[in-house]
Amino acid sequence: MIASFLARSTRSTTRVASTLSSPTSLLRFKSTGCYTKAKRIGFVGLGNMGLPMATNLFNGFKNEADFIIYDINQTTTSNFVKDHSAGNKDKVKVAKTPLEVAQEASVIVTMLPASPHVESVYFGKDGLLEALGPDHLVMDASTIDQSMATRVAKVLHGKGAKAIDAPVSGGTGGAQAGTLTFMVGSNTVADFELAKRYLDKMGKNIVHCGTNGNGQVAKICNNMLLGISMIATSETMNLGVRMGMDPKLLAGILNTSSGRCWSSEVYNPCPGVQENSAATRGYTGGFGMPLMAKDMRLAVNAAVETKSTVLLGALAQQLYNQMAANKDFEQLDFSAAYKWLSENAK
Amino acid sequence: MIASFLARSTRSTTRVASTLSSPTSLLRFKSTGCYTKAKRIGFVGLGNMGLPMATNLFNGFKNEADFIIYDINQTTTSNFVKDHSAGNKDKVKVAKTPLEVAQEASVIVTMLPASPHVESVYFGKDGLLEALGPDHLVMDASTIDQSMATRVAKVLHGKGAKAIDAPVSGGTGGAQAGTLTFMVGSNTVADFELAKRYLDKMGKNIVHCGTNGNGQVAKICNNMLLGISMIATSETMNLGVRMGMDPKLLAGILNTSSGRCWSSEVYNPCPGVQENSAATRGYTGGFGMPLMAKDMRLAVNAAVETKSTVLLGALAQQLYNQMAANKDFEQLDFSAAYKWLSENAK
Amino acid sequence: MIASFLARSTRSTTRVASTLSSPTSLLRFKSTGCYTKAKRIGFVGLGNMGLPMATNLFNGFKNEADFIIYDINQTTTSNFVKDHSAGNKDKVKVAKTPLEVAQEASVIVTMLPASPHVESVYFGKDGLLEALGPDHLVMDASTIDQSMATRVAKVLHGKGAKAIDAPVSGGTGGAQAGTLTFMVGSNTVADFELAKRYLDKMGKNIVHCGTNGNGQVAKICNNMLLGISMIATSETMNLGVRMGMDPKLLAGILNTSSGRCWSSEVYNPCPGVQENSAATRGYTGGFGMPLMAKDMRLAVNAAVETKSTVLLGALAQQLYNQMAANKDFEQLDFSAAYKWLSENAK
Amino acid sequence: MIASFLARSTRSTTRVASTLSSPTSLLRFKSTGCYTKAKRIGFVGLGNMGLPMATNLFNGFKNEADFIIYDINQTTTSNFVKDHSAGNKDKVKVAKTPLEVAQEASVIVTMLPASPHVESVYFGKDGLLEALGPDHLVMDASTIDQSMATRVAKVLHGKGAKAIDAPVSGGTGGAQAGTLTFMVGSNTVADFELAKRYLDKMGKNIVHCGTNGNGQVAKICNNMLLGISMIATSETMNLGVRMGMDPKLLAGILNTSSGRCWSSEVYNPCPGVQENSAATRGYTGGFGMPLMAKDMRLAVNAAVETKSTVLLGALAQQLYNQMAANKDFEQLDFSAAYKWLSENAK
Repeated sequence: MIASFLARSTRSTTRVASTLSSPTSLLRFKSTGCYTKAKRIGFVGLGNMGLPMATNLFNGFKNEADFIIYDINQTTTSNFVKDHSAGNKDKVKVAKTPLEVAQEASVIVTMLPASPHVESVYFGKDGLLEALGPDHLVMDASTIDQSMATRVAKVLHGKGAKAIDAPVSGGTGGAQAGTLTFMVGSNTVADFELAKRYLDKMGKNIVHCGTNGNGQVAKICNNMLLGISMIATSETMNLGVRMGMDPKLLAGILNTSSGRCWSSEVYNPCPGVQENSAATRGYTGGFGMPLMAKDMRLAVNAAVETKSTVLLGALAQQLYNQMAANKDFEQLDFSAAYKWLSENAK
Repeated sequence: MIASFLARSTRSTTRVASTLSSPTSLLRFKSTGCYTKAKRIGFVGLGNMGLPMATNLFNGFKNEADFIIYDINQTTTSNFVKDHSAGNKDKVKVAKTPLEVAQEASVIVTMLPASPHVESVYFGKDGLLEALGPDHLVMDASTIDQSMATRVAKVLHGKGAKAIDAPVSGGTGGAQAGTLTFMVGSNTVADFELAKRYLDKMGKNIVHCGTNGNGQVAKICNNMLLGISMIATSETMNLGVRMGMDPKLLAGILNTSSGRCWSSEVYNPCPGVQENSAATRGYTGGFGMPLMAKDMRLAVNAAVETKSTVLLGALAQQLYNQMAANKDFEQLDFSAAYKWLSENAK
Repeated sequence: MIASFLARSTRSTTRVASTLSSPTSLLRFKSTGCYTKAKRIGFVGLGNMGLPMATNLFNGFKNEADFIIYDINQTTTSNFVKDHSAGNKDKVKVAKTPLEVAQEASVIVTMLPASPHVESVYFGKDGLLEALGPDHLVMDASTIDQSMATRVAKVLHGKGAKAIDAPVSGGTGGAQAGTLTFMVGSNTVADFELAKRYLDKMGKNIVHCGTNGNGQVAKICNNMLLGISMIATSETMNLGVRMGMDPKLLAGILNTSSGRCWSSEVYNPCPGVQENSAATRGYTGGFGMPLMAKDMRLAVNAAVETKSTVLLGALAQQLYNQMAANKDFEQLDFSAAYKWLSENAK
Repeated sequence: MIASFLARSTRSTTRVASTLSSPTSLLRFKSTGCYTKAKRIGFVGLGNMGLPMATNLFNGFKNEADFIIYDINQTTTSNFVKDHSAGNKDKVKVAKTPLEVAQEASVIVTMLPASPHVESVYFGKDGLLEALGPDHLVMDASTIDQSMATRVAKVLHGKGAKAIDAPVSGGTGGAQAGTLTFMVGSNTVADFELAKRYLDKMGKNIVHCGTNGNGQVAKICNNMLLGISMIATSETMNLGVRMGMDPKLLAGILNTSSGRCWSSEVYNPCPGVQENSAATRGYTGGFGMPLMAKDMRLAVNAAVETKSTVLLGALAQQLYNQMAANKDFEQLDFSAAYKWLSENAK
C-alpha cells in the first residue's frame, strides 16, 4: 500500500510508468481511473488557518498535482481559484460538496473549526465518507476531541482509507510562514511518513504522537498547559510590577530561574518586555481568546471523561471564557490575560 | 571588589580614629582590633540550607578570615566547630547571642526560616541591631515578605550599616554544591558588588534585582510561577497519560512546544520521564511541600497587599497547603503534586 | 384537569376522524381503540429513580388506567409486572421497544440517565418518535442539557404531541416517598396543568419554571448552587472545627446568621451535627458523587455555551469529579466533601 | 454597662453580705473608688460602625452612667460630645489616649478596623493595658484574627480584668438600628452574662460561641461561608438569566429548593428580585467590598495556620480583593459580585 501510494503520488508518475514492478497499483490505477485522481489534492476548510495552509500546500505541489477545494464561503474559494488557476482552468476546481472532493482527490486535508463541522464534512449528506476508499489518504488538521478523532479514523480505516489526525500549533503566522507544528496521530509509522510529505509543505515540525487520536491528545495537553502558564505568568508579572519591580528585570530573572516557561520567555504578556510580542503590539494578532477558550474546553471535557482532575485547568478555562465573552477582549491575543488582570484592579 | 572592601575598612578605621567621641566603638575596636574584626565573618542560622552555605563560605574564606556562628541548635554549632576549627580554637567561635555575632564580625550572613525569626534575630533582645554600625555588611538570605526586608534594610541603613536581602533558589542540593542563585535587593550597586564577593562562594548566579526588598520580590514571584507551573504540569501529564499517551512522548512534545516550562523540561513530575528527577526517585529530597506552601503564602499575601489578583496562585497555595498537611505528602518534594492528582483518582 | 384531558382526547379523535388522509393513524386507532389507548400509561426507564416513581404513578392510576413499561433491564421489568399485574395479565405490559410504548400509551413518562439515552429512546430506531402524535402527552423527567430538552420539545410539538421537561430533585428517598420536586418546562400553562395530574402522584412540589427547557435550567442552576454550597459548608465547618469550635455550636451560629444555607441547616456535612443527616450515617444513601459530578458538568457546559462565568462552579465541578473518581468516595453521598477535606489533611 | 455592672455589684454585694467570704471585692470597691469609676463607660473607635454603636450604648445607659470616648478623628469625638453632652460638661469626656479611657471607665468597648489597631490601642504606649485591672470589663467588637483575640484575652486576664471578644454582623444598618448580632468568645458564662447587659443595647442577638477567641472563629467562619455563597448565588443567577429564565422565578425556585441560602433568599444579588435588597438600589450601602475582602483574608489566613483547606474560600478571597481594588466596585455592596460577573461578559 505504502509502496503503491508513494508510486502513485510522489516521485512519482514517472516511477509508476517506468517501473512495472508494482503490478497491483498499476492494476488499481487502471481499474479505477486512479491516475487522474492521484494527481489531484483536496482541501476542505479555507478559513483563517486553512487558507494559508492550502496556499502553501498548493505552492509545494502545483507542479505535480492539481487541486480541488471546498468551503462554504464561495468568495474564498473563487478568490483561491483566481489566485492560483490563471491560464489553466482545471488547475484548481471548486467542489460543490465534500463528497465531490473525495471523488476527485486521493489526498485530502481538512481544516475545520470544531467537531460538529468534522461530523458534517465527513459523515453528513454528501460528505467525504461516501466516496472514500483504499486509495485515499485523509489528514484532518482540525482541533477536536479525541473521541471524534478516533471515530473518524476508525470509520475511514473501515473503508480501507488511510487517515491521520494532525492538529497544529503556530497560529495564523505559522500557517502563513509554513512553520506550523503538526501533532500527528497515526496507527502506523507508514501512514505518518506518507502524510509527512504533505504536511512538510505547511509546517516545520511534524511530530508523530502515537496512535490515531493522539495528535489531539498532544494538542489539547500542550494548549492546556500553555493556557494555564499564560495566566500564571500574567499573575506573576502583574504582582511583581505592583510590588515595584521593573518588568524587564523581573522577566529576565524568571527566565533564568525555575519559574521560566514559554509564556515568560518567548511570549511575555507584559507590554514592553519583548519587542515582538503580541503584548507589545497591543495584543493584536496572535492566538485569539475564543480559540484558547475552545481548546481549554476540550481539555476540561477530556479531563471529565477520563476522570482526571484539572483544578487549575478548569479555572483557566473559565477565565478565557470570560475574556472571550467580553467585547473589549474577545478580539485580542490570549496573552491579554495580563491586561485583564492589571486593568481590573484600576 | 576586594579593593572597594578594603577601602571601606580603611575609611571606617579613619572615621573611628577621628571620632574619639565614640568611646564604645573605640573600645570595641581596641579590644578586638579592626583588622581582626574585618577578618571575622558571622553566620546566623545553620539549618538545612544554612549549614552547607556556611560551610562553603568558610571554605572560601578560611585563609583570610575567622568565623563566628550562631544557631539555637547547639549540636549543630559544636559540630561545625569540630569540623572546621581543628588545631585553632579561635578559628570558629560560637556566639551565645546574635548580638555577639555583630560585636565580633563585620560581615554577617543570616539564613532564617521566616519573618518572625528575622524579627527576633535582628531586632529582639540581644539581637544583631544592638551592635550594628557603619562597619557592617549584613546579608539576609532568608525568604521573607518584602515589607520585612525593606524594614530591616531601612533600620540597618539608619545605623550606617550596609544591608542587602539575598534570598536563594536552588534548594539543599544547590546549597551543598555552592550553585545557588541569589536574588539580591540592594539600593546601591556598590553594596551589591561588595556582597557578591561573599555570595559567590555559596552560589553560581548572583543577580541584582533592584532596590532593597526586590530580592524578595523576585524570589516570591519566581516561586509563585514555579508553584503554579508544577501543578499545571502535573495536571497536564496526568491528563495525557489517562488519555492514553506515553508520558515520555508527551513530555517530549510539550518541551518542544509552547506548553514547555521548567517543570516539564527539567523537573518533570511524572515518574520515569527523566532519569534524575525527584519524581523518578520517589519524590525524595528536593524542595519540600511545606517550603513551597510557605512561599506561595508569601506570594498570596503580597498580592492582597498590593491589590494584585492571583486566582491561580491562591488555588495553588491551597493545594500545597493541603499536601503539606497530609502526612503521606508533607515529606515529599513539591513535584509530588502529580502523585496527589493521580492517586486521588484511583 | 381530567376534563381538559378528556377534551383533548375527544378533539383528537375528531380531528383524526375528519382527516382520512392519515390512514396510518387511523389504522392505529382502529386496532388499539382510542379509548383503550387513553387508558394506558407508559413509563420508560425504571432505574433507581424511575422504579419508585413508576410504582407511585401506578398506584395512583391503577384504577383508571393500565400500564406499559420499558427498560433495558428485563429483570426489572418482569419484577414490576410480577408486583403489580397479579390476576390481570393486561394490567402491565412490557414493551420490547420505546416505539411500542408510544403505540400503546397516550401518556408517557421517561426517566433516563443522560442526553444520549434520551436521544436514543426518543429519536433512535424503534424510538418513541415514530408513533407520537397529537394524542400524546410526554413528560421527560431526565436531567439533561437545556438544548436537548428544547430539541425534544420542538420535535414532539412538530408531531402535534404535548411535551414537557420535568427534571426532579429529592433523590431516591423522595422518589420512594412520592415527595419529589418537579421543575417543569412547558410552553403552555395548559400542558403544565395536564402534566401536573400525573406528576402529583410522584411528587409534592410541581413547579412551572417557564417554557420548555426551563425545567432543566432550574434544575441545573439549583444543583450548581447546591454543589458549591455543600463544599463551601464543608470548608467552613472543617475550618471552624480546626480552629477549636464545637461543630454543633458552629452550625447553630451559621444557621441563625448570614452564612446559612440548605447544606448547613438541613444537610450539614459534618458528622454528628444533625441526627438524620447523610453525614451522621457515614455518608451512605443520599445523592451520590457521580450524580452531582454529572449535574455540575451540565452547569459548566451551559455556562460555556451561554458565555456565563462560573469560577466557583468550575472548581466545584472538578472536586466532585475527583471524588467521584476515587473508589473510597464514589459510593458516598455528595456531602462527603467534608470527609474529603478533613481526611486529606491528616 | 454600668447597669449590668451595677446589678452585678449589687448582687455581689448581697452575696458578699450574706457570705462574708468575699472580702476582697468588697475591699476593692472601697479602695479604688469603684463607685465613681463604675459610673463611666468607655468607647474606643467611633468609625462607621463604632459611632452608631456608641450612640446606642449611650442612649441605653445615659441615665445611670457617664461616658468617655476616644478616636483619632477629633471631629468625630467633638461632634459626639456636642450631640450628647448638652448641659452637662462631664457627661461625655473625650480622652486624649486609650490609657485615659482605662483610667476613667470600668466598662470599655473597642471597635477597631484590624489587628494592628487593636495591638496599638491595647498594648501600645498610652494604651489601655497600662491601667487595666480587676475592676475592668473590656469588650472588643473588632473583627480580628483568633490568635490576636486570644492574646488580648490572656494578657487582660493576667491583669485580672474581664475580657471578651465580640465581633458583630449586621453592618452599619444593624449598628444604627441596634440590631447587630454579637458573636461572643468568653471563657466563662459569668463574663458573657455581664457583657450581655451592654451588648443588648447595641444588638439583638448576643450569642455565646465558647471560649475567648471563638467569637472571632464564628465571625470568620460565617463570613467565609457568606462570601462564597454570595459569589455562588451570583454565578447561578447570572447563568440562569443567560439561559433564559426570569430571575424572580429562578430565585423563587432556588429558595424552595436545596440551593437556597441567605444570599439567595434575603439578599439576592440580582437587581429587581427583591424590593429592598442592596442589588435593587444599585448596590449602595450594605457591606462593602473591602470589608468582605478583609474578612475573607482572615479566613484564608486562619485556614493556612490550622492546615485547613479552603479552595473555594481562597478563590472567593481573590475575587473580593479584585473587586475591592477596582474603583467602579470598591464602594459597592459585596453583592455587586453579580454586577461584576454579568458586566464582565458584555
